[in-house]
Amino acid sequence: MVGGGKDAFIGAIHRIAANMDGLIELSCGALSINPEVAKDSGKMLFLPESRTYLTYDEMISKEATLPADQRIDFVTIVTPNFAHFAPAMMALDHGFHVVIEKPIAFTSDEARQLKKKVEETGLLLCLTHTYSGYPLVKQAKQMVKDGVFGKIRKVWVEYPQGWLSKMTEREGNAQAAWRTDPKKSGKAGAMGDIGTHAAHLAEYITGLKITQLCADLNIMVEGRALDDDGNVLLKFDNGAAGVLMASQVAAGEENALKIRVYGEKGGLEWAQHEPNTLLVKWLDQPTQILRAGGNYGDRLGSYATHNARTPGGHPEGYLEAFGNIYRNFALTLSARIDGKKPSPEMLDFPGVEDGIRGMAFIDNVVASAQSDKKWWEYKV
Amino acid sequence: MVGGGKDAFIGAIHRIAANMDGLIELSCGALSINPEVAKDSGKMLFLPESRTYLTYDEMISKEATLPADQRIDFVTIVTPNFAHFAPAMMALDHGFHVVIEKPIAFTSDEARQLKKKVEETGLLLCLTHTYSGYPLVKQAKQMVKDGVFGKIRKVWVEYPQGWLSKMTEREGNAQAAWRTDPKKSGKAGAMGDIGTHAAHLAEYITGLKITQLCADLNIMVEGRALDDDGNVLLKFDNGAAGVLMASQVAAGEENALKIRVYGEKGGLEWAQHEPNTLLVKWLDQPTQILRAGGNYGDRLGSYATHNARTPGGHPEGYLEAFGNIYRNFALTLSARIDGKKPSPEMLDFPGVEDGIRGMAFIDNVVASAQSDKKWWEYKV
Amino acid sequence: MVGGGKDAFIGAIHRIAANMDGLIELSCGALSINPEVAKDSGKMLFLPESRTYLTYDEMISKEATLPADQRIDFVTIVTPNFAHFAPAMMALDHGFHVVIEKPIAFTSDEARQLKKKVEETGLLLCLTHTYSGYPLVKQAKQMVKDGVFGKIRKVWVEYPQGWLSKMTEREGNAQAAWRTDPKKSGKAGAMGDIGTHAAHLAEYITGLKITQLCADLNIMVEGRALDDDGNVLLKFDNGAAGVLMASQVAAGEENALKIRVYGEKGGLEWAQHEPNTLLVKWLDQPTQILRAGGNYGDRLGSYATHNARTPGGHPEGYLEAFGNIYRNFALTLSARIDGKKPSPEMLDFPGVEDGIRGMAFIDNVVASAQSDKKWWEYKV
Amino acid sequence: MVGGGKDAFIGAIHRIAANMDGLIELSCGALSINPEVAKDSGKMLFLPESRTYLTYDEMISKEATLPADQRIDFVTIVTPNFAHFAPAMMALDHGFHVVIEKPIAFTSDEARQLKKKVEETGLLLCLTHTYSGYPLVKQAKQMVKDGVFGKIRKVWVEYPQGWLSKMTEREGNAQAAWRTDPKKSGKAGAMGDIGTHAAHLAEYITGLKITQLCADLNIMVEGRALDDDGNVLLKFDNGAAGVLMASQVAAGEENALKIRVYGEKGGLEWAQHEPNTLLVKWLDQPTQILRAGGNYGDRLGSYATHNARTPGGHPEGYLEAFGNIYRNFALTLSARIDGKKPSPEMLDFPGVEDGIRGMAFIDNVVASAQSDKKWWEYKV
Repeated sequence: MVGGGKDAFIGAIHRIAANMDGLIELSCGALSINPEVAKDSGKMLFLPESRTYLTYDEMISKEATLPADQRIDFVTIVTPNFAHFAPAMMALDHGFHVVIEKPIAFTSDEARQLKKKVEETGLLLCLTHTYSGYPLVKQAKQMVKDGVFGKIRKVWVEYPQGWLSKMTEREGNAQAAWRTDPKKSGKAGAMGDIGTHAAHLAEYITGLKITQLCADLNIMVEGRALDDDGNVLLKFDNGAAGVLMASQVAAGEENALKIRVYGEKGGLEWAQHEPNTLLVKWLDQPTQILRAGGNYGDRLGSYATHNARTPGGHPEGYLEAFGNIYRNFALTLSARIDGKKPSPEMLDFPGVEDGIRGMAFIDNVVASAQSDKKWWEYKV
Repeated sequence: MVGGGKDAFIGAIHRIAANMDGLIELSCGALSINPEVAKDSGKMLFLPESRTYLTYDEMISKEATLPADQRIDFVTIVTPNFAHFAPAMMALDHGFHVVIEKPIAFTSDEARQLKKKVEETGLLLCLTHTYSGYPLVKQAKQMVKDGVFGKIRKVWVEYPQGWLSKMTEREGNAQAAWRTDPKKSGKAGAMGDIGTHAAHLAEYITGLKITQLCADLNIMVEGRALDDDGNVLLKFDNGAAGVLMASQVAAGEENALKIRVYGEKGGLEWAQHEPNTLLVKWLDQPTQILRAGGNYGDRLGSYATHNARTPGGHPEGYLEAFGNIYRNFALTLSARIDGKKPSPEMLDFPGVEDGIRGMAFIDNVVASAQSDKKWWEYKV
Repeated sequence: MVGGGKDAFIGAIHRIAANMDGLIELSCGALSINPEVAKDSGKMLFLPESRTYLTYDEMISKEATLPADQRIDFVTIVTPNFAHFAPAMMALDHGFHVVIEKPIAFTSDEARQLKKKVEETGLLLCLTHTYSGYPLVKQAKQMVKDGVFGKIRKVWVEYPQGWLSKMTEREGNAQAAWRTDPKKSGKAGAMGDIGTHAAHLAEYITGLKITQLCADLNIMVEGRALDDDGNVLLKFDNGAAGVLMASQVAAGEENALKIRVYGEKGGLEWAQHEPNTLLVKWLDQPTQILRAGGNYGDRLGSYATHNARTPGGHPEGYLEAFGNIYRNFALTLSARIDGKKPSPEMLDFPGVEDGIRGMAFIDNVVASAQSDKKWWEYKV
Repeated sequence: MVGGGKDAFIGAIHRIAANMDGLIELSCGALSINPEVAKDSGKMLFLPESRTYLTYDEMISKEATLPADQRIDFVTIVTPNFAHFAPAMMALDHGFHVVIEKPIAFTSDEARQLKKKVEETGLLLCLTHTYSGYPLVKQAKQMVKDGVFGKIRKVWVEYPQGWLSKMTEREGNAQAAWRTDPKKSGKAGAMGDIGTHAAHLAEYITGLKITQLCADLNIMVEGRALDDDGNVLLKFDNGAAGVLMASQVAAGEENALKIRVYGEKGGLEWAQHEPNTLLVKWLDQPTQILRAGGNYGDRLGSYATHNARTPGGHPEGYLEAFGNIYRNFALTLSARIDGKKPSPEMLDFPGVEDGIRGMAFIDNVVASAQSDKKWWEYKV
């Protein structure tokens, strides 16, 4: 693991997610750029001193020299956005598969270089777009793909948070500090941090691609350098229309990602706060409440079933969704190592293409926001 | 009553709303342009034959000749949009106050003429923007006005319906037929029918005015002449940003008007399907569930209290909200007749200014949709 | 109207409910035992002085002498419980139909006398068990009757309120004062006031009859004379088991009547706070959300449809449910007057039999509470 | 691990829960009484062959001979109810701490023997009453303890499931088969399986003890040997009244454990299906929505905070609640090993006393159901 020292948020989440299913073991780490923190964190995580490294460079080069049955299989990168690219490239260059916390890189150019490297090496790259790991998100995707709603006409995706309603970054909140700093976060704020999740979810569930957008990005807290709020009109490649909203100044909201999709015959609604419920709406029948792990025979599809650990009524959450990404990555990797063909369900984890589109979303949404033109043609 | 014959939808609603509080009595009607329907409807409603008129012209002119203590006090107009203006003008010209089903008229020009006439005659004009009649909508308005949320930053208002997901207008649905016909409905479809309600609600609650918009109007059901779906970016006069969505092809949705407003210190959420609940969100405290008629002393404001008929836990609904508009109109009228000053709570019903802004919304949203410019300056 | 003076709660509700559909007109009243209040209330309600009576005796005897086309058709009684019987008997004796606020009387003996009188006179007696007037309660009843859930096994009905959590009756709350006074309210407190509604709802929806019960009645606020809380085990005539809970010391609850019924194949859940939603649960399919006025063709039964005034998504509430009882009573009465046969849907309003069972519930629950025997045989 | 072979339900859950936080590692197992299954399961879980045992006897005796730094620290027992006692006693006798899936044993007598053994050896015994591991359940407990609701008056706890609505045990469902078999499950069915969870939750949150009960146990599916449904009236040691319901024939329900507690000043409501929300109700203020990991400073207590892994809006679920029990057990064990004093938050996991009371609940509820007496004195 690169990054994720003892006070980091997302590193701890990655470890729980990776631990959960007993398929992955943390073996070494370059856990902080601060040597003291790196060492302390290693101890806290029961790592041997010999594999508690001080830099990713040291970690990757030393691990690469270990015998095959002792060295790590893959590297997880959980540093701030600006420090994703270099360790990822180095890991791939040394033959290690890679898991990267979203976004894949700092710029689209870096993302494209990673894509090229992945194609050259044939190694796996997994990108933790967590929300696509929920069983009922996968169910939604499968239902749309199976055509039960007919042609999709409308996609509404919203992601309000409230935690940046005040100038939190000046109150000693390290999370807020780097996320609102263009040098560490990139050229977008809320749109980069959470808007990309919303865009990924919309494209993941519908199987459609955004082709045009019209973005309104705002800085609501005076003095901030990056957008903390945005509303975006969307057009998709099948003619569907949509709205994407991402805000970090929606005071009182937690992490209220929600998506609604409507087709000719019905629609669906899923909200991250209650992830075990999928509302399925019909033109001429009562709305149905689908439940993760549901007890009604074969009505849930193979993807939802593969990604649930418990029967209906035993709520799974964010960590299990995150765990599903690691689990599918690990199952795909195991199948490869065993010379087997992974199932389509195992292969269903976000990768380098999702990373490329995520960076493109940031580029396009920022360009549109700065343009006077109504519709901005989406370029990838 | 002009319009509202036996098979009409909104006429029956107006009658229930007007009856509810025992302040208003239906005394005469020109209930249909079809004489048979007009007569039958009169009988059904226990009107005397002598006051069951065949045209609004006949009704208004004859009623005007009755002695003051026998003739009607006001005229309610519940015809399709294109037939609002003429009877309204005639009623005002003959000294009758007027209640008009929304929209106030067919064009902005007509709306401005009505405004002029209202100013000249000093008569009351009430416009039934129903949703502003809900007690907790009034509570929301009062809380925003009192500044409890600080400066408003974000307004999201959405109004999805699904009933026009198919070409219902060709299946003998009279409601669908006139609403999708530009000659009867006007130049906007969903945006005129329900988008105007959403816009009214947003401005009513926040006290802000839309100053710019960027509209994407769509015809999702092929062959239809007017928009059945739309997404609009908004800017308000205090700098707040927003989104307004109105759709009649959101398959499986009923009448799901919902608004969320966020300020510096907190926000609120209200949904018409559960109108007796108002969520109040705070930056640093748990969300509160305010309830209409709530049992917690003086915590609800004077407007919410004035507009509730029952204690907490006895749900009031759409008809009571509608009834509140009639009730406040009638109380204002009674106060006038008695030479008293109506209270601010009584005076809080939509009128000619709301009608003007409603027509302007239609004009601006259609113009923006046809423009390549990103931001359309809102003109009233 | 007998009772229901200007400060009374339930009288005002009755008037709104009766006004709503334009079928009933308030013509006279004996509105208070206080002559000043009676007169003021009459004025407030636009009653002529000549028909603003000071006692129910005066009202009934004078009205009976008016010509048939001028006198009232029926008498509504909205006094406290102890004063239901005498005016009801007198009204029936003078040939007037009767509507009585629940409970029908003060004792079971009175209830039986009323039943005899109704049978002798052939007049209508309507009892306002409001909650059975909701469209989706009627839908629930019809679904159970149609057997879609198979044999019913379990019935849970709960009715928590919180407004008597403190000694409110000593703080000048007139509602609390008479309801907690055995001389005015009867031998049960919460069980009489709201437990009877819960018992009625359970029997109404399931079509089953309670045959045994085991009651635990409590006085939670020290110094109170009547139960303010109770839990009751139930057995029904088909072998189903159940629980009925009624409490007025459930601090923070409003009027949270809720019922769940389970059969062999599925079940249903309805809550008065969101009365336009009926959850229908299945053994092997996803839960369905039925909505009042629902837009899915013929899926709602004839009873739910008959009792709705608005299409789906326009919430109706407590006053409309109350109004449905008056409306069905009035439609039945009109049909009678016109020599027509009322439809089964019109005839579906609570009457004297419901009143008898309501009084029996109070008797049995109080007797069981005082007994050491586990199962008390229900006597009617 | 004893039990939990490849097709078992609860064993897999225990492993995820134990893995999650990286504090516990599965080192050996006697995973099935079927040797083939035992071996296959060991392979599947990456256990070395040498530590894949065929019986618990073999496992415990061999592990006890390993050097201290190689052998296991504790034994987890996840076999059916009748096979909890023997391995638990043997493990304690050989100096191993023990984690036992609920119920602690097959009879109260066994439970008392375990208690004695625990006291003699000074070893830890952890009982996985999962639902007490949820952060907001702990918050509820802390709020009640802090007295914010005043004296508790009423406790309603319900646990409906629907999965035994049919004779599932004869359709090849192994879970159903042993749970409905008195020889494997014990003398209670639904009351033992899930009623005990409900009783534990009620006593855990309120800090009160049940002193009397009146039970109605039913067999709703003909031919079944044990209760599949039950309703129980409760009395607590402070005078509070309550109801406990447990049913496995509530067709269409999943695992809908829910509790409501009311005191003099307010109350709380928590439902396992949405475990990250705690409703807090007040006599004279709006209801508050407390959220796990909530973003409102110090408003959540130390127990809720200690037991959350993610910030508000990142739902944690059943596995995390289960994990909290393992985590607290492991932290207590680590503290002990390190000679430190575990914090009160760490010590807050169910143990042998909870096991004793769980067995007593079964004894008392079955005895009461067979008795004609109304109130059964609760004996432990």
